[in-house]
Amino acid sequence: MKLYDLGPSGNCYKVRLFAALANIDLELVPVDFANGAHKQPPLSELNPLGQLPILDDGGHIVRDSQAILVYLAGTYGGLAWWPDNPRGQAEIVQWLSFTANEIQQSLNAARLVQKFGYPLDKAAALEKAPAVLKLLDDHLLRHDWLAIDRPTIADCAVYPYVALAPEGDVDITPYSHVARWMASIESLTGYLKP
Amino acid sequence: MKLYDLGPSGNCYKVRLFAALANIDLELVPVDFANGAHKQPPLSELNPLGQLPILDDGGHIVRDSQAILVYLAGTYGGLAWWPDNPRGQAEIVQWLSFTANEIQQSLNAARLVQKFGYPLDKAAALEKAPAVLKLLDDHLLRHDWLAIDRPTIADCAVYPYVALAPEGDVDITPYSHVARWMASIESLTGYLKP
Repeated sequence: MKLYDLGPSGNCYKVRLFAALANIDLELVPVDFANGAHKQPPLSELNPLGQLPILDDGGHIVRDSQAILVYLAGTYGGLAWWPDNPRGQAEIVQWLSFTANEIQQSLNAARLVQKFGYPLDKAAALEKAPAVLKLLDDHLLRHDWLAIDRPTIADCAVYPYVALAPEGDVDITPYSHVARWMASIESLTGYLKP
Repeated sequence: MKLYDLGPSGNCYKVRLFAALANIDLELVPVDFANGAHKQPPLSELNPLGQLPILDDGGHIVRDSQAILVYLAGTYGGLAWWPDNPRGQAEIVQWLSFTANEIQQSLNAARLVQKFGYPLDKAAALEKAPAVLKLLDDHLLRHDWLAIDRPTIADCAVYPYVALAPEGDVDITPYSHVARWMASIESLTGYLKP
Protein backbone atom coordinates (compact mmCIF):
# COMPACT_ATOMS: atom_id res chain seq x y z
CA MET A 1 0.00 0.00 0.00
CA LYS A 2 1.58 3.28 -1.17
CA LEU A 3 1.28 6.70 0.44
CA TYR A 4 2.30 9.61 -1.78
CA ASP A 5 3.93 11.66 0.91
CA LEU A 6 5.58 14.96 1.80
CA GLY A 7 7.74 14.94 4.94
CA PRO A 8 6.86 18.36 6.42
CA SER A 9 3.13 18.09 5.59
CA GLY A 10 0.96 17.78 8.68
CA ASN A 11 -1.79 16.21 6.57
CA CYS A 12 0.62 13.48 5.43
CA TYR A 13 1.81 13.09 9.02
CA LYS A 14 -1.79 12.40 10.15
CA VAL A 15 -1.74 9.27 8.00
CA ARG A 16 1.81 8.24 8.91
CA LEU A 17 1.02 8.67 12.61
CA PHE A 18 -2.16 6.61 12.43
CA ALA A 19 -0.51 3.86 10.38
CA ALA A 20 2.31 3.67 12.94
CA LEU A 21 -0.12 3.48 15.88
CA ALA A 22 -2.34 0.89 14.17
CA ASN A 23 0.62 -1.11 12.89
CA ILE A 24 -0.30 -0.71 9.22
CA ASP A 25 2.53 -1.04 6.69
CA LEU A 26 2.82 1.89 4.29
CA GLU A 27 5.29 2.27 1.46
CA LEU A 28 6.10 5.98 1.52
CA VAL A 29 6.58 7.54 -1.92
CA PRO A 30 8.20 10.97 -1.50
CA VAL A 31 6.72 13.53 -3.90
CA ASP A 32 8.81 16.27 -5.53
CA PHE A 33 6.58 19.00 -4.13
CA ALA A 34 9.06 21.83 -4.84
CA ASN A 35 8.78 21.09 -8.56
CA GLY A 36 5.01 20.72 -8.42
CA ALA A 37 4.85 16.96 -9.09
CA HIS A 38 1.58 16.84 -7.11
CA LYS A 39 -0.06 19.17 -9.65
CA GLN A 40 1.02 17.21 -12.72
CA PRO A 41 0.17 13.77 -14.14
CA PRO A 42 0.27 11.07 -12.94
CA LEU A 43 -0.44 12.49 -9.44
CA SER A 44 -2.98 15.09 -10.60
CA GLU A 45 -4.91 12.21 -12.19
CA LEU A 46 -4.98 10.39 -8.85
CA ASN A 47 -6.02 13.57 -7.04
CA PRO A 48 -7.40 16.38 -9.21
CA LEU A 49 -7.23 18.69 -6.16
CA GLY A 50 -3.42 18.64 -6.52
CA GLN A 51 -2.97 17.87 -2.83
CA LEU A 52 -1.14 15.33 -0.72
CA PRO A 53 -1.41 12.77 0.79
CA ILE A 54 -2.80 10.25 -1.68
CA LEU A 55 -3.24 6.57 -0.77
CA ASP A 56 -2.95 3.82 -3.37
CA ASP A 57 -4.18 0.52 -1.95
CA GLY A 58 -3.58 -1.94 -4.76
CA GLY A 59 -5.05 0.47 -7.31
CA HIS A 60 -7.84 1.80 -5.09
CA ILE A 61 -7.13 5.51 -4.68
CA VAL A 62 -8.16 7.62 -1.68
CA ARG A 63 -7.39 11.34 -1.50
CA ASP A 64 -7.79 13.69 1.50
CA SER A 65 -6.10 12.92 4.82
CA GLN A 66 -9.37 12.64 6.74
CA ALA A 67 -10.87 10.23 4.21
CA ILE A 68 -7.66 8.17 4.23
CA LEU A 69 -7.92 7.87 8.03
CA VAL A 70 -11.50 6.59 7.73
CA TYR A 71 -10.49 4.15 4.99
CA LEU A 72 -7.43 2.78 6.78
CA ALA A 73 -9.07 2.56 10.19
CA GLY A 74 -12.23 0.96 8.83
CA THR A 75 -10.38 -1.48 6.61
CA TYR A 76 -7.21 -2.32 8.54
CA GLY A 77 -7.20 -0.50 11.89
CA GLY A 78 -10.05 -2.13 13.76
CA LEU A 79 -13.13 -0.81 15.52
CA ALA A 80 -11.12 0.85 18.30
CA TRP A 81 -10.11 3.63 15.89
CA TRP A 82 -13.32 4.00 13.84
CA PRO A 83 -16.36 2.31 15.40
CA ASP A 84 -19.13 0.82 13.28
CA ASN A 85 -21.93 2.77 14.99
CA PRO A 86 -23.07 6.12 13.58
CA ARG A 87 -23.12 7.77 17.00
CA GLY A 88 -19.41 7.16 17.52
CA GLN A 89 -18.63 7.95 13.89
CA ALA A 90 -20.45 11.28 14.14
CA GLU A 91 -18.57 12.14 17.34
CA ILE A 92 -15.32 11.57 15.43
CA VAL A 93 -16.49 13.47 12.32
CA GLN A 94 -17.07 16.55 14.53
CA TRP A 95 -13.31 16.61 15.10
CA LEU A 96 -12.45 15.85 11.48
CA SER A 97 -14.44 18.98 10.57
CA PHE A 98 -12.72 20.91 13.39
CA THR A 99 -9.32 20.12 11.92
CA ALA A 100 -10.42 20.72 8.30
CA ASN A 101 -11.83 24.11 9.23
CA GLU A 102 -10.91 25.73 12.60
CA ILE A 103 -7.39 24.28 12.89
CA GLN A 104 -6.70 24.68 9.18
CA GLN A 105 -7.50 28.40 9.28
CA SER A 106 -5.55 29.15 12.47
CA LEU A 107 -2.66 26.89 13.56
CA ASN A 108 -2.02 25.44 10.11
CA ALA A 109 -2.37 28.71 8.18
CA ALA A 110 0.14 30.45 10.50
CA ARG A 111 2.63 27.62 9.96
CA LEU A 112 2.14 27.64 6.18
CA VAL A 113 3.12 31.33 6.09
CA GLN A 114 5.98 31.07 8.57
CA LYS A 115 7.60 27.87 7.34
CA PHE A 116 6.71 27.75 3.64
CA GLY A 117 5.96 31.36 2.68
CA TYR A 118 2.34 30.75 1.65
CA PRO A 119 0.50 33.99 0.74
CA LEU A 120 -1.98 33.76 3.63
CA ASP A 121 -2.79 36.26 6.38
CA LYS A 122 -0.58 35.15 9.27
CA ALA A 123 -1.83 37.86 11.65
CA ALA A 124 -5.44 36.76 11.11
CA ALA A 125 -4.44 33.12 11.62
CA LEU A 126 -2.60 33.93 14.86
CA GLU A 127 -5.56 35.93 16.11
CA LYS A 128 -7.83 32.88 15.71
CA ALA A 129 -5.41 30.42 17.33
CA PRO A 130 -6.05 31.08 21.07
CA ALA A 131 -9.82 30.52 20.75
CA VAL A 132 -9.23 27.27 18.86
CA LEU A 133 -6.73 26.02 21.45
CA LYS A 134 -9.01 27.11 24.31
CA LEU A 135 -11.88 25.09 22.84
CA LEU A 136 -9.63 22.07 22.64
CA ASP A 137 -8.31 22.63 26.15
CA ASP A 138 -11.80 22.98 27.63
CA HIS A 139 -12.88 19.77 25.92
CA LEU A 140 -9.78 17.92 27.16
CA LEU A 141 -10.38 19.15 30.70
CA ARG A 142 -13.44 16.87 30.71
CA HIS A 143 -12.22 14.10 28.38
CA ASP A 144 -9.05 12.02 28.13
CA TRP A 145 -9.43 11.67 24.36
CA LEU A 146 -11.28 13.72 21.75
CA ALA A 147 -14.04 11.20 21.03
CA ILE A 148 -15.70 8.06 22.45
CA ASP A 149 -13.35 7.88 25.46
CA ARG A 150 -10.44 6.25 23.68
CA PRO A 151 -7.78 7.02 21.07
CA THR A 152 -9.38 7.25 17.62
CA ILE A 153 -8.64 8.76 14.24
CA ALA A 154 -10.01 12.02 15.73
CA ASP A 155 -6.85 12.29 17.84
CA CYS A 156 -4.68 11.36 14.85
CA ALA A 157 -6.36 14.08 12.77
CA VAL A 158 -6.10 16.88 15.36
CA TYR A 159 -2.74 16.15 17.03
CA PRO A 160 -0.42 16.89 14.06
CA TYR A 161 -1.14 20.59 13.54
CA VAL A 162 -1.27 21.17 17.30
CA ALA A 163 2.15 19.54 17.71
CA LEU A 164 3.46 21.54 14.75
CA ALA A 165 1.85 24.84 15.85
CA PRO A 166 5.06 26.29 17.38
CA GLU A 167 6.53 26.26 13.85
CA GLY A 168 3.91 28.93 13.05
CA ASP A 169 4.79 30.96 16.17
CA VAL A 170 1.70 29.74 18.01
CA ASP A 171 2.31 29.33 21.74
CA ILE A 172 0.69 26.12 22.96
CA THR A 173 2.26 26.16 26.44
CA PRO A 174 -0.71 27.82 28.25
CA TYR A 175 -3.00 24.87 27.48
CA SER A 176 -2.28 22.29 30.16
CA HIS A 177 -5.03 19.82 29.20
CA VAL A 178 -3.87 19.90 25.61
CA ALA A 179 -0.36 19.18 26.90
CA ARG A 180 -1.59 16.20 28.93
CA TRP A 181 -3.50 14.84 25.92
CA MET A 182 -0.44 15.26 23.68
CA ALA A 183 1.67 13.36 26.23
CA SER A 184 -0.95 10.57 26.21
CA ILE A 185 -0.73 10.27 22.43
CA GLU A 186 3.06 10.35 22.57
CA SER A 187 3.08 7.45 25.03
CA LEU A 188 0.97 5.17 22.78
CA THR A 189 2.74 2.09 21.43
CA GLY A 190 4.05 2.79 17.95
CA TYR A 191 3.90 6.60 18.27
CA LEU A 192 5.78 8.35 15.50
CA LYS A 193 7.22 11.86 15.88
CA PRO A 194 6.26 14.61 13.39
CA MET B 1 -35.69 15.47 17.53
CA LYS B 2 -34.77 19.17 17.57
CA LEU B 3 -32.59 21.07 15.13
CA TYR B 4 -31.38 24.46 16.35
CA ASP B 5 -31.63 26.22 13.05
CA LEU B 6 -30.96 29.42 11.15
CA GLY B 7 -32.97 29.90 7.93
CA PRO B 8 -30.30 31.47 5.67
CA SER B 9 -27.49 29.19 6.90
CA GLY B 10 -26.27 26.78 4.24
CA ASN B 11 -24.92 24.49 6.96
CA CYS B 12 -28.36 24.29 8.56
CA TYR B 13 -29.89 23.75 5.12
CA LYS B 14 -27.61 20.72 4.59
CA VAL B 15 -29.38 19.03 7.49
CA ARG B 16 -32.89 20.22 6.55
CA LEU B 17 -32.34 19.03 2.98
CA PHE B 18 -31.12 15.59 4.03
CA ALA B 19 -33.92 15.14 6.58
CA ALA B 20 -36.49 16.05 3.90
CA LEU B 21 -35.00 13.59 1.38
CA ALA B 22 -34.69 10.79 3.94
CA ASN B 23 -38.12 11.49 5.42
CA ILE B 24 -36.79 12.22 8.91
CA ASP B 25 -38.95 14.42 11.14
CA LEU B 26 -37.14 17.41 12.61
CA GLU B 27 -38.57 19.99 14.95
CA LEU B 28 -36.90 23.22 13.81
CA VAL B 29 -35.98 25.60 16.63
CA PRO B 30 -35.17 29.03 15.14
CA VAL B 31 -32.19 30.66 16.87
CA ASP B 32 -31.97 34.41 17.48
CA PHE B 33 -28.68 34.67 15.61
CA ALA B 34 -28.78 38.47 15.28
CA ASN B 35 -28.67 38.77 19.08
CA GLY B 36 -25.96 36.13 19.40
CA ALA B 37 -28.11 33.44 21.07
CA HIS B 38 -25.81 30.79 19.53
CA LYS B 39 -22.85 32.19 21.50
CA GLN B 40 -24.61 32.26 24.87
CA PRO B 41 -25.94 29.60 27.25
CA PRO B 42 -27.78 27.33 26.81
CA LEU B 43 -26.70 26.98 23.16
CA SER B 44 -23.01 27.64 23.81
CA GLU B 45 -23.12 24.75 26.29
CA LEU B 46 -24.52 22.45 23.62
CA ASN B 47 -21.92 23.65 21.10
CA PRO B 48 -18.89 25.48 22.55
CA LEU B 49 -17.90 26.44 18.98
CA GLY B 50 -20.85 28.84 18.97
CA GLN B 51 -22.06 27.56 15.63
CA LEU B 52 -25.26 26.24 14.08
CA PRO B 53 -26.77 23.76 13.38
CA ILE B 54 -27.01 21.73 16.57
CA LEU B 55 -29.01 18.50 16.76
CA ASP B 56 -30.70 17.37 19.98
CA ASP B 57 -31.91 13.79 19.64
CA GLY B 58 -33.63 13.12 22.94
CA GLY B 59 -30.74 14.69 24.85
CA HIS B 60 -27.95 13.33 22.64
CA ILE B 61 -26.26 16.39 21.17
CA VAL B 62 -24.45 16.49 17.82
CA ARG B 63 -22.77 19.66 16.55
CA ASP B 64 -21.28 20.31 13.08
CA SER B 65 -23.40 19.90 9.96
CA GLN B 66 -21.22 17.14 8.52
CA ALA B 67 -21.30 15.12 11.75
CA ILE B 68 -25.08 15.57 11.97
CA LEU B 69 -25.44 14.17 8.44
CA VAL B 70 -23.39 11.09 9.43
CA TYR B 71 -25.42 10.67 12.62
CA LEU B 72 -28.83 11.06 10.99
CA ALA B 73 -28.01 8.95 7.95
CA GLY B 74 -26.40 6.19 9.99
CA THR B 75 -29.14 6.15 12.61
CA TYR B 76 -32.32 6.96 10.67
CA GLY B 77 -31.52 7.37 6.99
CA GLY B 78 -30.49 3.91 5.90
CA LEU B 79 -27.46 2.49 4.15
CA ALA B 80 -28.28 4.19 0.85
CA TRP B 81 -27.12 7.52 2.29
CA TRP B 82 -24.17 6.37 4.46
CA PRO B 83 -23.00 2.83 3.74
CA ASP B 84 -21.54 0.60 6.44
CA ASN B 85 -18.33 -0.14 4.53
CA PRO B 86 -15.23 2.01 5.08
CA ARG B 87 -14.50 2.23 1.35
CA GLY B 88 -17.82 3.93 0.68
CA GLN B 89 -17.60 6.00 3.85
CA ALA B 90 -14.14 7.26 2.88
CA GLU B 91 -15.38 8.18 -0.61
CA ILE B 92 -18.08 10.29 1.06
CA VAL B 93 -15.69 11.82 3.63
CA GLN B 94 -13.55 13.13 0.74
CA TRP B 95 -16.51 15.33 -0.20
CA LEU B 96 -17.29 16.31 3.39
CA SER B 97 -13.72 17.64 3.60
CA PHE B 98 -14.15 19.32 0.21
CA THR B 99 -17.14 21.27 1.49
CA ALA B 100 -15.56 22.03 4.90
CA ASN B 101 -12.45 23.39 3.22
CA GLU B 102 -12.51 24.23 -0.53
CA ILE B 103 -16.17 25.25 -0.76
CA GLN B 104 -16.10 27.00 2.62
CA GLN B 105 -13.19 29.21 1.57
CA SER B 106 -14.57 30.10 -1.87
CA LEU B 107 -18.32 29.90 -2.57
CA ASN B 108 -19.38 30.19 1.06
CA ALA B 109 -16.88 32.91 2.04
CA ALA B 110 -18.00 35.11 -0.90
CA ARG B 111 -21.64 34.71 0.16
CA LEU B 112 -20.86 35.46 3.82
CA VAL B 113 -19.36 38.80 2.80
CA GLN B 114 -21.99 39.71 0.22
CA LYS B 115 -25.10 38.67 2.11
CA PHE B 116 -24.11 39.07 5.77
CA GLY B 117 -21.19 41.52 5.76
CA TYR B 118 -18.66 39.12 7.28
CA PRO B 119 -15.14 40.62 7.42
CA LEU B 120 -13.62 38.13 4.97
CA ASP B 121 -11.72 38.71 1.73
CA LYS B 122 -14.41 38.45 -0.94
CA ALA B 123 -12.01 39.03 -3.84
CA ALA B 124 -9.82 36.14 -2.68
CA ALA B 125 -12.88 33.94 -2.26
CA LEU B 126 -14.15 34.79 -5.77
CA GLU B 127 -10.72 34.09 -7.21
CA LYS B 128 -10.79 30.56 -5.79
CA ALA B 129 -14.36 29.79 -6.89
CA PRO B 130 -13.83 28.86 -10.58
CA ALA B 131 -11.20 26.21 -9.76
CA VAL B 132 -13.48 24.68 -7.12
CA LEU B 133 -16.46 24.60 -9.50
CA LYS B 134 -14.28 23.23 -12.31
CA LEU B 135 -13.14 20.36 -10.06
CA LEU B 136 -16.75 19.58 -9.26
CA ASP B 137 -17.79 19.85 -12.91
CA ASP B 138 -14.98 17.55 -14.07
CA HIS B 139 -15.96 14.98 -11.44
CA LEU B 140 -19.63 15.19 -12.44
CA LEU B 141 -18.76 14.75 -16.10
CA ARG B 142 -17.78 11.19 -15.19
CA HIS B 143 -20.22 10.53 -12.33
CA ASP B 144 -23.96 11.02 -11.83
CA TRP B 145 -23.49 11.56 -8.07
CA LEU B 146 -20.52 12.64 -5.97
CA ALA B 147 -19.86 9.28 -4.32
CA ILE B 148 -20.65 5.55 -4.66
CA ASP B 149 -22.89 6.04 -7.72
CA ARG B 150 -25.98 7.12 -5.84
CA PRO B 151 -27.33 10.04 -3.81
CA THR B 152 -25.60 10.17 -0.42
CA ILE B 153 -24.92 12.67 2.33
CA ALA B 154 -21.98 13.83 0.15
CA ASP B 155 -24.48 15.38 -2.26
CA CYS B 156 -26.48 16.88 0.64
CA ALA B 157 -23.26 18.41 2.04
CA VAL B 158 -21.99 19.92 -1.23
CA TYR B 159 -25.23 21.00 -2.94
CA PRO B 160 -26.29 23.80 -0.53
CA TYR B 161 -23.40 26.22 -0.98
CA VAL B 162 -23.31 25.53 -4.73
CA ALA B 163 -27.03 26.33 -5.01
CA LEU B 164 -26.53 29.45 -2.85
CA ALA B 165 -23.33 30.58 -4.64
CA PRO B 166 -25.08 33.20 -6.83
CA GLU B 167 -25.91 35.06 -3.58
CA GLY B 168 -22.13 35.61 -3.28
CA ASP B 169 -21.87 36.81 -6.93
CA VAL B 170 -20.40 33.49 -8.05
CA ASP B 171 -21.50 32.55 -11.55
CA ILE B 172 -22.33 28.84 -11.69
CA THR B 173 -23.89 28.89 -15.18
CA PRO B 174 -20.72 27.80 -17.08
CA TYR B 175 -20.67 24.41 -15.32
CA SER B 176 -23.08 22.21 -17.23
CA HIS B 177 -22.36 18.96 -15.37
CA VAL B 178 -22.87 20.72 -12.07
CA ALA B 179 -26.20 22.01 -13.45
CA ARG B 180 -27.27 18.48 -14.47
CA TRP B 181 -26.32 17.12 -11.00
CA MET B 182 -28.23 19.94 -9.29
CA ALA B 183 -31.30 19.15 -11.41
CA SER B 184 -30.98 15.48 -10.37
CA ILE B 185 -30.96 16.44 -6.69
CA GLU B 186 -33.88 18.81 -7.22
CA SER B 187 -35.91 16.00 -8.77
CA LEU B 188 -35.45 13.63 -5.80
CA THR B 189 -38.61 12.82 -3.84
CA GLY B 190 -38.87 15.11 -0.82
CA TYR B 191 -36.43 17.73 -2.17
CA LEU B 192 -36.55 20.95 -0.17
CA LYS B 193 -35.56 24.33 -1.65
CA PRO B 194 -32.84 26.44 0.09
